[in-house]
Amino acid sequence: MTTASASLPITARTRVGRLAAQQIVDRAALYALLDSQILAHAAIVLDGNPLIIPLAFARDGDSVLIHGSTGGGLLRHAATGSGLGLSVTALDGLVYARNLFDSSMNYRSAVVYGIPLVVPDADKERALLVLSERLMPGRGDEVRPMTRRELAATIVFRIPLDEVSRKVRTGAPSESADDGEDHAVWAGVVPMNIRWLTPEASPLTAKATAVPASVRRQCAVDAEHASGVLVA
Amino acid sequence: MTTASASLPITARTRVGRLAAQQIVDRAALYALLDSQILAHAAIVLDGNPLIIPLAFARDGDSVLIHGSTGGGLLRHAATGSGLGLSVTALDGLVYARNLFDSSMNYRSAVVYGIPLVVPDADKERALLVLSERLMPGRGDEVRPMTRRELAATIVFRIPLDEVSRKVRTGAPSESADDGEDHAVWAGVVPMNIRWLTPEASPLTAKATAVPASVRRQCAVDAEHASGVLVA
Repeated sequence: MTTASASLPITARTRVGRLAAQQIVDRAALYALLDSQILAHAAIVLDGNPLIIPLAFARDGDSVLIHGSTGGGLLRHAATGSGLGLSVTALDGLVYARNLFDSSMNYRSAVVYGIPLVVPDADKERALLVLSERLMPGRGDEVRPMTRRELAATIVFRIPLDEVSRKVRTGAPSESADDGEDHAVWAGVVPMNIRWLTPEASPLTAKATAVPASVRRQCAVDAEHASGVLVA
Repeated sequence: MTTASASLPITARTRVGRLAAQQIVDRAALYALLDSQILAHAAIVLDGNPLIIPLAFARDGDSVLIHGSTGGGLLRHAATGSGLGLSVTALDGLVYARNLFDSSMNYRSAVVYGIPLVVPDADKERALLVLSERLMPGRGDEVRPMTRRELAATIVFRIPLDEVSRKVRTGAPSESADDGEDHAVWAGVVPMNIRWLTPEASPLTAKATAVPASVRRQCAVDAEHASGVLVA
């Protein structure tokens, strides 16, 4: 795999018009965002109209992977047409300013633009294991290998991380406003993140079955992130 | 406001090709999803290419509202062109099957397609208060009213909920597979939701300032949803 440059090129499409200071071109920060999320939204153009679908994704080196059914045609349109935009957003908090206009959200966002490349059969199983490992770390070691039928039913696409727009808002609300704001009013940020809840065993899982390492690890990651304490 | 029919019409764009059983046309369920989320992704077509941006939204009766800067041109393109697709997704859990192929995510997803209509000046303040009330319930009563300058700097769009694609996956993993799965392996669902963390006051908020009702309410909603217990 080739190593991409540490800075992301800015193209006409990824240049942030408004709030240009929020645009980040740091590849390491981009990868940290992508590695912290499992849900993306893909936008494609079909007959001149926008289409958008939510889907899982995973970073694999200097590209991202998405997958679908061989029978599902939506992603194929992107591969033969005008490409797709893949948006990944982490919502980090609500920003309470002393007026509604300056109130906002803290977030980290990346949009990857590109033509999806079909992952060749020889690399398909490895790519699917990368996807699986990102979504459910360690699970691949707990279940049987993929079958030939399953591999044949799945199509995997790779989108190189060449054209990426990234935006971030962090920190406190803007307090520069001086247009009648009441400074006795509380202003600040209410952070948010994702919480994993108690695993629920399926009907055919015998009662004595231990929750496996992969699931315990998933939940433990959450406990690490839970630095804050809930307000009662 | 006119009352839309209780069932959503199925159009060529909103017909779900694969997994048609996951398509839901129940308007009440759609509205419940939209009202539970604050982040959307909007896809538009610009010069034949897909563009996608994350943004806040709110349902207002039988339409959704989005807003932006008067200076930001992206949403205007949608209003004069081929419209937009607005996707809202709630990620509810990871589904651990006894093979990777049947492993999945539980989610509720809606995509609204339409031409955004510019909300006229006479209705703009009300529309912005609807947006604010959805994102930060009660905050509008704690801060000063919007100024004329702020209203002039903001553009609000309404997208009628006429063409909507909705998909849902809930419940346990499929256990019908019989292709070498080890039934001694745990299978099930790890639910997830959003957690609000301790509010962080801004630098100019005096130490003795009480966390306001709007912020306490935001966090209390979370405590209600937290039916599960974290795995240590």
